[in-house]
Amino acid sequence: MKIVVINRLLKDSHKEQIRKAAAGAGGSVLFVETEEDIPSDWDDCEVIYGFGMGNAAKNKDLKWLSVPSAGVDYLMKPGVFANEDCLVTNSSGAYGVTIAEHIIAVTLMMMRKLDYSYGESLKGNWSSPQPQKSLKDCRILVLGTGDIGCCFARRARAFEPGSITGVSRSGKCSDPSFDLVRTVSELDLLLPFADLLVMSLPDTPETRDILNRERIGLLPAGAYVVNVGRGSAIDEDALYESLVSGKLGGAALDVFKNEPLPSDSRLWKTPNLIITPHVAGNLTLEHTLNVNVDMFCKNLINYSKGLPLNNLIDRNKGY
Amino acid sequence: MKIVVINRLLKDSHKEQIRKAAAGAGGSVLFVETEEDIPSDWDDCEVIYGFGMGNAAKNKDLKWLSVPSAGVDYLMKPGVFANEDCLVTNSSGAYGVTIAEHIIAVTLMMMRKLDYSYGESLKGNWSSPQPQKSLKDCRILVLGTGDIGCCFARRARAFEPGSITGVSRSGKCSDPSFDLVRTVSELDLLLPFADLLVMSLPDTPETRDILNRERIGLLPAGAYVVNVGRGSAIDEDALYESLVSGKLGGAALDVFKNEPLPSDSRLWKTPNLIITPHVAGNLTLEHTLNVNVDMFCKNLINYSKGLPLNNLIDRNKGY
Repeated sequence: MKIVVINRLLKDSHKEQIRKAAAGAGGSVLFVETEEDIPSDWDDCEVIYGFGMGNAAKNKDLKWLSVPSAGVDYLMKPGVFANEDCLVTNSSGAYGVTIAEHIIAVTLMMMRKLDYSYGESLKGNWSSPQPQKSLKDCRILVLGTGDIGCCFARRARAFEPGSITGVSRSGKCSDPSFDLVRTVSELDLLLPFADLLVMSLPDTPETRDILNRERIGLLPAGAYVVNVGRGSAIDEDALYESLVSGKLGGAALDVFKNEPLPSDSRLWKTPNLIITPHVAGNLTLEHTLNVNVDMFCKNLINYSKGLPLNNLIDRNKGY
Repeated sequence: MKIVVINRLLKDSHKEQIRKAAAGAGGSVLFVETEEDIPSDWDDCEVIYGFGMGNAAKNKDLKWLSVPSAGVDYLMKPGVFANEDCLVTNSSGAYGVTIAEHIIAVTLMMMRKLDYSYGESLKGNWSSPQPQKSLKDCRILVLGTGDIGCCFARRARAFEPGSITGVSRSGKCSDPSFDLVRTVSELDLLLPFADLLVMSLPDTPETRDILNRERIGLLPAGAYVVNVGRGSAIDEDALYESLVSGKLGGAALDVFKNEPLPSDSRLWKTPNLIITPHVAGNLTLEHTLNVNVDMFCKNLINYSKGLPLNNLIDRNKGY
């Protein structure tokens, strides 16, 4: 079994861990920094751990693509896989900690006007105090109660919020950090009470433009919106207008309909909008990389034994 | 009993609350936005709630100055009080929530390089991912286990840190969020294990330059320093050099030896230093203002009944 691992951030310890798992699975492993570095005699590999879409498009022997990302929308298009039966797993579960920290960070930056005072400090200005808001007593609505939503809720709970409500497909979540969990069908009833709306949704037909103009209108005046899922979930024009008009208190977007965000996008200069370049969850945080590698190694053993894979994607549903 | 309240941020509801407390205490109350607005027939007031140092310096009838700040160092100098027996209370206890949120915000900004990516976004740049650190598994050392230190520790606990150690005068703190509390005499033993050092100390002879060059040298490489207490606690030159050399991972200063920070200070352009203009705790957050007014009203009843005042400052000790 030929296993190709594509990742420029792996340390020697990670490689050693993967080599051991591969040996246990009866496979041999090749490490490359980018897909372009795969030698031709590995083009027929059976397993790829990494972003190996170039190989997947032509390699009919590829049986399992394990991607280190949580989102898999980019794999759900026609033509991605030469082998239509290729298994796909994502790395959902590796990003909860890092993305939760991102959400807390940008939320507090907005609420405390640190975007303003830090921006002024870059110009050498000792700025005057601004009106502030707080997570204390804040009514929080979390769209998506997966690993990310739960990790965020657990941290947010310590800030003594007014409430934390989750919205999920099932309307259920076992994490006790949520006061309440409801289904998407009740979203419109919940939005008017969301001082902070956190969105951590995958890109699926159901989530596209889920925060449309009408729903932005349902949010209370001064509400904050944070999106760490996929940019497709928000009507960016409506969001832009609600920020320019002052209806929203602020928004923090890590994901966009078009990435990188085009240099001529009007979003760059939108008041009270914090833009980050899709860095809420990435492997530059050692903890995230460690968990990611752990998950692959465990799944590799499952794969070799014919056991069900964790984080297997249903390519019809897209998650 | 003439009571003067100096505060431009009070809402009508706050004024009503204070009026009721004053009536209960047998006093009449005057609200002014600044000290300059006090009419001459109120110059002999008995109580001031606010920054009334101009009156205090000349009013021999002033018996109680209640300041809305937690720090009182500026009151400990000669000549501040015409009445040497004037009681002084601070508003310690009103700032824990807001300053804890500030500490979490700037810590995550540093650890996640949001200072960099947000700074780049202001220039319209979609920047590349940077190495990140996390509060998860972070060893946190908190100098000062008062209201601020405890509020911070409670929030930090939710981020699954490696440890939270407190340092206080007594070596004791009843808040279970600390794994360990030690006295200042053990500080040098603790610093080598502090990935994050949080300083929330008042300005007293004991705390001046407590983080000196030698102690900065004891911190592990890549450590972060956050100061929300008083600028006097840090040797700013040594901190500057440890940031320029790359010894420290970053620092976030909300307080400085000289405030406002002079426009020609080299601190403004120091790498990995987040400067905020003494805004970690201020009354622009409604919760802080509410608690502050509550505390004064309760103390006013105590004062009228001859009961001990809460938050009474020992002017010899300075806290």
